[in-house]
Formats: sequence, structure tokens, C-alpha cells
Amino acid sequence: MDIASDSLDVGGGGASLGQGSPSGHAAPPVARTFLDSLIDAGILIPTGVDGIYGRSRVYEAIAEGMDALITEIGADQQAEMMRFPPTTPRNDFEDSEYLKSFPQLAGIVHSFCGNDHEHFRLVARLERGEDWTDQLRPTRVVLTPAACYPVYPVLARRGPLPPEGRVVDVFSYCFRHEPSIEPTRMQMFRMREYVRLGTPEQILAFRQMWIERGQKLADDLEVPHTLDLANDPFFGRGGKLVADNQRDLKLKFELLIPVNDGAPPTACMSFNYHVDHFSTVWPLRTADGEKAHTGCAAFGIDRLTLALLRNHGLDLSGWPRGVRALLGGI
Amino acid sequence: MDIASDSLDVGGGGASLGQGSPSGHAAPPVARTFLDSLIDAGILIPTGVDGIYGRSRVYEAIAEGMDALITEIGADQQAEMMRFPPTTPRNDFEDSEYLKSFPQLAGIVHSFCGNDHEHFRLVARLERGEDWTDQLRPTRVVLTPAACYPVYPVLARRGPLPPEGRVVDVFSYCFRHEPSIEPTRMQMFRMREYVRLGTPEQILAFRQMWIERGQKLADDLEVPHTLDLANDPFFGRGGKLVADNQRDLKLKFELLIPVNDGAPPTACMSFNYHVDHFSTVWPLRTADGEKAHTGCAAFGIDRLTLALLRNHGLDLSGWPRGVRALLGGI
Repeated sequence: MDIASDSLDVGGGGASLGQGSPSGHAAPPVARTFLDSLIDAGILIPTGVDGIYGRSRVYEAIAEGMDALITEIGADQQAEMMRFPPTTPRNDFEDSEYLKSFPQLAGIVHSFCGNDHEHFRLVARLERGEDWTDQLRPTRVVLTPAACYPVYPVLARRGPLPPEGRVVDVFSYCFRHEPSIEPTRMQMFRMREYVRLGTPEQILAFRQMWIERGQKLADDLEVPHTLDLANDPFFGRGGKLVADNQRDLKLKFELLIPVNDGAPPTACMSFNYHVDHFSTVWPLRTADGEKAHTGCAAFGIDRLTLALLRNHGLDLSGWPRGVRALLGGI
Repeated sequence: MDIASDSLDVGGGGASLGQGSPSGHAAPPVARTFLDSLIDAGILIPTGVDGIYGRSRVYEAIAEGMDALITEIGADQQAEMMRFPPTTPRNDFEDSEYLKSFPQLAGIVHSFCGNDHEHFRLVARLERGEDWTDQLRPTRVVLTPAACYPVYPVLARRGPLPPEGRVVDVFSYCFRHEPSIEPTRMQMFRMREYVRLGTPEQILAFRQMWIERGQKLADDLEVPHTLDLANDPFFGRGGKLVADNQRDLKLKFELLIPVNDGAPPTACMSFNYHVDHFSTVWPLRTADGEKAHTGCAAFGIDRLTLALLRNHGLDLSGWPRGVRALLGGI
């Protein structure tokens, strides 16, 4: 679990980017925000929905460079690589208790399952500009909320962990329903994680090691950064207590980098200890038959990409030479 | 548009893979199907939902090699690279007329937008094993149905095309609600496309060139293949007429490779001429102010990966040396 939780939450579907602002069309307006400047430079392509952007070749080169660099940093982990698509089974999602903690962020996929007659009605309503979505039914899949979620039920089916536990390397598009005009708060974004399963000692040592590696990575990327205790954005009034408890137990740390205009720095990496949450939901056991503990080091690929663009500029040729080399010579 | 349409359609949510079949656990069963053998080898990881699989390092190395090879083949296209996330605006999707043609395949994202009280009710229903999904509301996004869909409304906002038209390079996860036990019919899969916008002559020349490049690619990959006229799986009784018309006008060709057990070969590439469909929906215009025509060459990255595994075996060390070299030395 790694719900990167900035303290700042702009928006909630308020201001829209509108349909305009294509790059290279008429004189560029004065860049009012970082988002505007990314759009004016053609690095992000607005779609009319906040938090859903197309991205340019430059953006993708940085993102791919970041991903490859994290692979390199984790090469000694002997991790099992697993790649899941951005949808995951609804029954596992329901079991995970995500809906208890973050119902507001979930995305459940619905489809049309009707016949010819119902289809005729759907199309007619659509053409009249009426709502037609009550003809949809929930499917067996939901959008993946965090890259590590599909891993736990899959590993639980394999039986007990080996004595050394396991490390799994995951990467996924993730969805969170939180439309925002902060470019770092996309509705769909890429998350890379190393997930650790084992004893409490194994998880805590893993997390500490990755906190140090994360800080060194941010140093190497030459971006200002701080590490801070954090909590996930648990929903509602009851959520406040859960969040306080998470802080008291020091379960979540975030590496923060300044990205957005006049806003606190953004969580670009997080280092999480889930205690036995996932082995309470699924029968994940250590070699000794104990409930396995889990943790993860999560890297927000899109947030790191934006952090680099913010701190080194939109023109790669002006970036520090060492940073470009680190990212594969972009 | 590039709804790869095999004539065969196994399943429809029938037989499930169940929760079992992890690899390397007890003696492997006799492989009954290609899917079984992929799971037994740990190349695909079942999740309990047909058409949603985790994938191993080997699978991803092949898929990435395919993607890079297609980049190389299209390097002369001077294409503008655009990368969109796997969700796209619902209003564009509604405008696109996809729901007229393929309502059964669409995926609309729903979220919970309630308050504390409604959340309490949701969790209580979930815990009692009751349906809770009527508390969800449709969001402004849908799952991307084909990689090229987000491109047209974005380009329409840029004004008329240049005289030479445009080529856009896209890659996306796509969703189609068609649960199946055929491994080539995933619910979420990756599609790479070159999209051409311009005059009818430009589109037809582009399509012919990519048909030839596609055939050469399949030759180079040393897989058996045939090219065939095809149609998309238009919904319902009325859909039959539309499909016949699409065939009569020779709008869609597919490159087919044998993959599945005892089944006709699978469409792994498609070469499409959309005529003026997208410029009827969005104001895409040529430099002369005419309605732009569009077409695309689409590569099913997951289907091509499976085609290679089927035809060359699950052990890369037994593959033809030239094929491994082509895919970046995997």
C-alpha cells in the first residue's frame, strides 16, 4: 500500500483545463503555473479532463530513464518481476479493505451487457443527450489502486514464503479518482515498487535500506528533498483516527520534492510498512507458519518526472550533465 | 479504429481459470492448452479473472523487444509520439460513436462520491456480502478502447493539418470487456499504432506500405502468417450489415498468425482505413479545408508476444538466433 498523500489537495474536479491551450498555436500566454508551462511546451497534452494528459517524447524519455534507473538501483534485490495490467479482480479488491480506507479514490469498471433492444435504447438516449449509464453493470474488474495490490493474493496461493522471504518488483498504471489541476495529481499514473514479504525484522531492514537508497537517488538527481513521516488520506471522520495511528506507529515515510507552485513539496517516493494487513486478508505465511509482514518502497514515476522538469527546466539541454547520463543519456 | 476481430470467440465469461495453477508447485499437470502451458511455465500468472494475467520477466522482455522493433521499423515516419494513459475522457468516447458499434466491449469507470454516512452503509453491505455497487456513480473517464482514440479530438483542436498530413505514434493499454480463456483475448492488452491523417490518397498509400512492412516483420520473426480482409465485431443484428459493408469497401486487413489450440489464426496486426469517420465526429481538416481521412497500422503487442511463444517455444534459448537478435538480444 502506498497512497502517496500530499498534505495539499487542490481541486476535486473544480477548475478544468478546458479544451484549449494546444502548443505552438498563436503566441504562448504568460505561463501562470507549472502545468501551463508544461502544456505550452507540448510536454503534457490536455484532454479536457483534469489529471488525464497525453505526454510527449521528452516526458516519456525521462519517465523511462527513471524506471530503468530504479531497476539498476534494485538489481541486487533478486526480485521476482511481475507485471500486471492496470485492472485487477474486483473480488480481491473488495477483500483488500481498500474500500474501507479510500472509497473516494476507487475506480470500478462497468460495462453494457444488454441485448439488441437495450442497445437501441442506449444509443437513442445518448443521441438525445440523456444519461444512459444506468444501463451499465459492474464487471469483475477494478482499476489497480497501487502497483503492489495484485501481488498479495497471487503469492498467497503459492504457499508459505521461503525462509528469506520474498522481494517482488512491480510496475503499473494506477488509478485514483481525484481530478486536480496539480500536474502531480494525475488520475492515472505510473508507480514502480519493490515489495517485501517476510518477518517484521526483514521488512523494517528493507524499508530502512530503501529510505537510504531513495535519498541517495534524489541526491544523484540533484533535486532538493526532505524525508518526512506521513499518513495515507483515509476517508471521512473515522479516517482521522486511522491516520493518526499510522503516524504514531511510524508506518509511512515519504520523500518530498518541491514541484508545484506555492505548494508544499510533493511525495515522489514512499516507504511503507503494512504490518500484517495483507496477511490478515490473504493467507500469506512465513516459512515458520507465522503471518507474513509486508512493506514496500514505491516510486511515483510521473511525479519524479515532473520533479525533474520542475527543478532542472523544460529544456533537457540545460539539465546537469550527470543527471542526463544517469537517466540513460537522455 | 482497430478492433482486431478474430472469427473465433471462445468464452464470454464462461469457464474460469480458478484460483489455482501456480507454477512450480507439485508436479505440473499435462499441458492441455497453450494457456495452461504458459501458466505452468510461470510466463502468465492467473488472477482468477479470465483475460487478466500477471506476466513474467521473459514475457515482458519479448513485449518490450517487439515495441522497440516497431519503433525501428517506423523510424522514417517522422511520427509525433504521444502517450496517453489507459483512461480517456468519457465525453470524447461518447462522441466517437464507439457505443453504437461496440457497446459490449466498453469499460466505463465508476467511483464512490458519497459522504461518511453513505460510506458506512457501503462498508456494511460489503461485509454482509451484499451488492454495494449501486452506490457508485459514473466518472468523466472510460477505459481506452484502442490506442488511437485519444488522438483525434486532441489533433482536431490544433486546427487544419499541414499539407503533408500527420503521422502519430501511439501506444496504450486498451480495455475490452470480453472475458475469454483464449490467452490472445485479454481484457487489458497493449496496442502500438501508427496513425495517419490526411487525404484519402495519403491514407491508402500509408496503409499499403504498412501492410508490406507488417508482412516483412512477420517473415523476419519467422512465424507463419496470412493477410486477410476482415471486419470489426459490430454489435447486434444491425452490426452484421455494417460489418458486410466494411468488408465490401475493403477497409480492414489483418495479419493472422496461428496461436491458439485448434482455432483459426489470430489477428496480430491490423491495417485500417476509417474513411472520414473521425473527421465527421471531430473537425479534423486537411490543409485545403476538406474533411481529413484517417487510417492506422496497429500492432497487438501482447498477441505478437504470444505468437512468438507459441511458434518458437516457451524457452527463449531454443528460439532462432535471428529472432532473438531482432528483439534486442533477448
